Amino acid sequence: MIQGIGAAAGVAIGKAFVLPNWEWSLPDTQVNPVDLAKEFERLYEGIRTSKDEIEFIKREFREVVGPEESSIFDAHLAILDDPVFMSEIRGIIERQYKAAEVAVKEAIDHFVAMFDLLDDEYMKERAVDIKDVGNRLLKHLLGAPEVTLPSDTQPYILVAKELSPSQLAHLNPTYVLGIVTMMGGKTSHSSIMARALGIPLVAGLENKLPNPIQTGDLLVMDGESGSIQVHPDEDTIKNFASIRDKQHKKREQLELLATVEAVTKDGVSLRLAGNISSVKELNIALKYGAEGVGLFRTEFLYMDRDSFPSEEEQFEVYKLVAEKVSGSTVVIRTLDIGGDKHLDYFQLPEEQNPFLGYRAIRISLDRKDMFKTQLTAIMRASVYGNVKMMFPMISSVEEVQAAKAVLEEVKAELTQKGIPFNPHMPVGIMIEVPAAVMIADLLAEEVDFFSIGTNDLVQYVLAVDRMNEQIAHMYHPYHPAVLRMIRMTVEAAKGADIDVSVCGEMAADERSLPLWLELGISELSMSPQALLKVKHRTLNTLASDAREVAKACFKHRTSTENEKQLSAFACKSGIPLGTSGTSKEGK
Amino acid sequence: MIQGIGAAAGVAIGKAFVLPNWEWSLPDTQVNPVDLAKEFERLYEGIRTSKDEIEFIKREFREVVGPEESSIFDAHLAILDDPVFMSEIRGIIERQYKAAEVAVKEAIDHFVAMFDLLDDEYMKERAVDIKDVGNRLLKHLLGAPEVTLPSDTQPYILVAKELSPSQLAHLNPTYVLGIVTMMGGKTSHSSIMARALGIPLVAGLENKLPNPIQTGDLLVMDGESGSIQVHPDEDTIKNFASIRDKQHKKREQLELLATVEAVTKDGVSLRLAGNISSVKELNIALKYGAEGVGLFRTEFLYMDRDSFPSEEEQFEVYKLVAEKVSGSTVVIRTLDIGGDKHLDYFQLPEEQNPFLGYRAIRISLDRKDMFKTQLTAIMRASVYGNVKMMFPMISSVEEVQAAKAVLEEVKAELTQKGIPFNPHMPVGIMIEVPAAVMIADLLAEEVDFFSIGTNDLVQYVLAVDRMNEQIAHMYHPYHPAVLRMIRMTVEAAKGADIDVSVCGEMAADERSLPLWLELGISELSMSPQALLKVKHRTLNTLASDAREVAKACFKHRTSTENEKQLSAFACKSGIPLGTSGTSKEGK
Repeated sequence: MIQGIGAAAGVAIGKAFVLPNWEWSLPDTQVNPVDLAKEFERLYEGIRTSKDEIEFIKREFREVVGPEESSIFDAHLAILDDPVFMSEIRGIIERQYKAAEVAVKEAIDHFVAMFDLLDDEYMKERAVDIKDVGNRLLKHLLGAPEVTLPSDTQPYILVAKELSPSQLAHLNPTYVLGIVTMMGGKTSHSSIMARALGIPLVAGLENKLPNPIQTGDLLVMDGESGSIQVHPDEDTIKNFASIRDKQHKKREQLELLATVEAVTKDGVSLRLAGNISSVKELNIALKYGAEGVGLFRTEFLYMDRDSFPSEEEQFEVYKLVAEKVSGSTVVIRTLDIGGDKHLDYFQLPEEQNPFLGYRAIRISLDRKDMFKTQLTAIMRASVYGNVKMMFPMISSVEEVQAAKAVLEEVKAELTQKGIPFNPHMPVGIMIEVPAAVMIADLLAEEVDFFSIGTNDLVQYVLAVDRMNEQIAHMYHPYHPAVLRMIRMTVEAAKGADIDVSVCGEMAADERSLPLWLELGISELSMSPQALLKVKHRTLNTLASDAREVAKACFKHRTSTENEKQLSAFACKSGIPLGTSGTSKEGK
Repeated sequence: MIQGIGAAAGVAIGKAFVLPNWEWSLPDTQVNPVDLAKEFERLYEGIRTSKDEIEFIKREFREVVGPEESSIFDAHLAILDDPVFMSEIRGIIERQYKAAEVAVKEAIDHFVAMFDLLDDEYMKERAVDIKDVGNRLLKHLLGAPEVTLPSDTQPYILVAKELSPSQLAHLNPTYVLGIVTMMGGKTSHSSIMARALGIPLVAGLENKLPNPIQTGDLLVMDGESGSIQVHPDEDTIKNFASIRDKQHKKREQLELLATVEAVTKDGVSLRLAGNISSVKELNIALKYGAEGVGLFRTEFLYMDRDSFPSEEEQFEVYKLVAEKVSGSTVVIRTLDIGGDKHLDYFQLPEEQNPFLGYRAIRISLDRKDMFKTQLTAIMRASVYGNVKMMFPMISSVEEVQAAKAVLEEVKAELTQKGIPFNPHMPVGIMIEVPAAVMIADLLAEEVDFFSIGTNDLVQYVLAVDRMNEQIAHMYHPYHPAVLRMIRMTVEAAKGADIDVSVCGEMAADERSLPLWLELGISELSMSPQALLKVKHRTLNTLASDAREVAKACFKHRTSTENEKQLSAFACKSGIPLGTSGTSKEGK
């Protein structure tokens, strides 16, 4: 058994297919000066084709994994528009009369070497992107075929030195049982994508294999532990097959829970809603039994476009979502760009600390026209279902008042135009900035509900950017400070008799269940993929036991103690699937 | 009266001196291929001279304004080591046989144009730096003189299109009454430096002057409001002169307070200590009557070097500081790098959000050798005065315990070696991460004192990077959430009967005084420059009145209300200097 880095969970057994490197021989001819214009035309044609292809991959990929992961390709498109990279290529053609493909190759090599020299992680990431995009451009200029993958329908485990996001996007998930790479780690773009696609991935095997893996070698791999074995014996294969089959079976049984109500063994009901970014994701959420939408992230309506979406375009989407969840509610969050989300057509300043920067409601209140367009579209949709609206990144009473004032303007204009809207549509705020927690009692007087966004809250409370590998181990949702902040928020909400729910990733972590039960939070919103496992845990939990566990956690002094106790309880209270879980089906 | 941007406060009256642009004619000769080596030698010689010069400016400048501002020049030194910039210059000489100065000029133009194209604020800043450094290198290659400034001893107001940090550093503050620039704003490097030097500066006058200012024109300027007038009449001059003289007089009277004790009119004593980074700053603090050092920022011992300072080097400094404050205490904070502070010889990862990243105690606990060296030096100094030690950026009980465990190791080693130390030296922590506030009761059980670092605390609580121009207006130290966090911290400290002080910039803002009096915080530590004005305010305040104001603030819902009330009180309670203030002298 060889130990690599477990980068995407899951067990796979199958024959290896070793990905050949993208390498081509380049023409060694000089361009005749009179043909320079023709050479430029070839270059531009190649760029256009590459762009179209990247756009296509991005769209396709987004269908599968959602918009966050597919934004990786925006960086690639940007390179093909980068004036420095492009002027380097043009310069080589123009001054040295080299063929377009040679110029592209030299420019890639030049920039990759340059960025590597800088010894800066960000620049190294960019070097990988430039290589990926440059190779695509080269491929088109040479008329070379796409990387050859097995053409028969036999599923395989893909083995590669390193895998670029483009290459991964070309794979058909149905035929790729797993991926094994020599380079990379948990946080590489490819690992993120593999997790989103649900393909097991073991990375970081460089210098760990006694012999290189050959196409056709039989492999077993575990993307959770990061172990692989080449030419496993019968027993090992049986072992891995049994784990794999159990994982598949568990999944199937979970899916039966979609129509079951989320009630603890002692009768406490929870409402499990979905976090969505699109109608497509809403469909997945509904398929997995979401009771409405607890967080509709509208920023994705604004992405991958050339300009702001019109009132009409937004209205159509909001209306459709409202109608689709009909029996239940949808909470629409106003635009939350900035931080790590950007729009091509709306230039934001480069920031030293974007998470502590110009984002979300801060931008909306600055750009009133844009904000009014969105609020108008939401208000218009409010008569087509049970719509609520909330503002992100609130840190002061003044901000809420300013946002509500804009909403009043919108309502007045709609009234004047005779356009119908729900005048009693509930208005809430995200609680995700520590300041909002500290003044939750004051904010509660201003709004109809709170939604606790644990992702940002944990980040700010602990001063830990969880995307930062160096300190990711310090990102503790179960830190006593976080627990106390959540409790403060809930107490303020109860004091003012307004609703409070949780929509961050903590809601999707079934270990948190005791906390919600103890605090009396009955609405959780999470990614559609997490709905069934949280429901399964709910069905197998005794609320009375869970509350005792939570009470103990609120007394602990460290994250470690909390995590240990919550994990232990989640294991203990977990009754095997299929015994008690499905018995309530149809309720 | 013409309105620009007030970038550094102060009134000035004087004749303009218009700074000529740095522009030279370049030789148009080709280098003979056999002389290439000689040309490279000239280039390297120029680089060496430029580096020496920048090092010299940096050192000189630091003497005047302190280490933070002078770190601007580190960026400049880095450019002369930048492999990309340098390979561009070498390439032009080598391939095109151009003279070194022409190559430098072309490389500057190339990179400046390239960075400008990228339309990215960070890159534009870098372009300004490259221009500045490149011009210095050019100057040496051409043997050109430094920018010509008036050589007689007549003070002047300097007028320039834009002023680079290098140029500003060359000015003799004694002769520069004020600065007027066409470009720039409040946050440009030059404005930061002008404020540090105490030179009034009005920026952003581009397109606002009917005629360009000529050398010799009489000017009046107000660096606070940003207004200037060319050829002012007698009355205007009189007006400005009277304001200027009042400002000078006020300063002189304040200086008389150095030896006065800080006691309110109704007898509440405060201890006003200094924040320092060096022995030089300690001297200034003592001159201004600091009662000891509330924050010794040790990171500056680590800067501008090639390697970590040895135990012996650190010990000598800590010992000297401990001895100098003899009668009072010195609180030594362990290394706080990361965030916006870096060391040349200790590579930190490039981070997306450095303020939420790998910094301070997080690094120290990872780099135990380095940490132990510092702790050993501090412990050894502990017998030479009243030394306390504190850890920065604490966010959990585990961190404090880990840091204390390292300290125990150090103590054991010193005991074994028979080296004396104070076994009862108090150990405290900075309270600057919101998590620390939330668990202040738990942390109080672990340490001897708290020091509230308001700068970072406000930043994290509000999720506002105050260096970010776009949202700097949202950075509110008087936000109700901040006040509540400070109160929580104080209550936890009182509950555990440990000391609590404030060492952030709020301590230096005399408007905060009512808050400290109401909360019972009796120790404030601040930059030496703020000591006298805070003392003056203390002497003129009735604590009983101030407490009423603070009580009202703790009930307010907004920063605006708090700021208004605290400012109004600070004005009202301000009895003119020289009446009651100095009467207590000698006490």
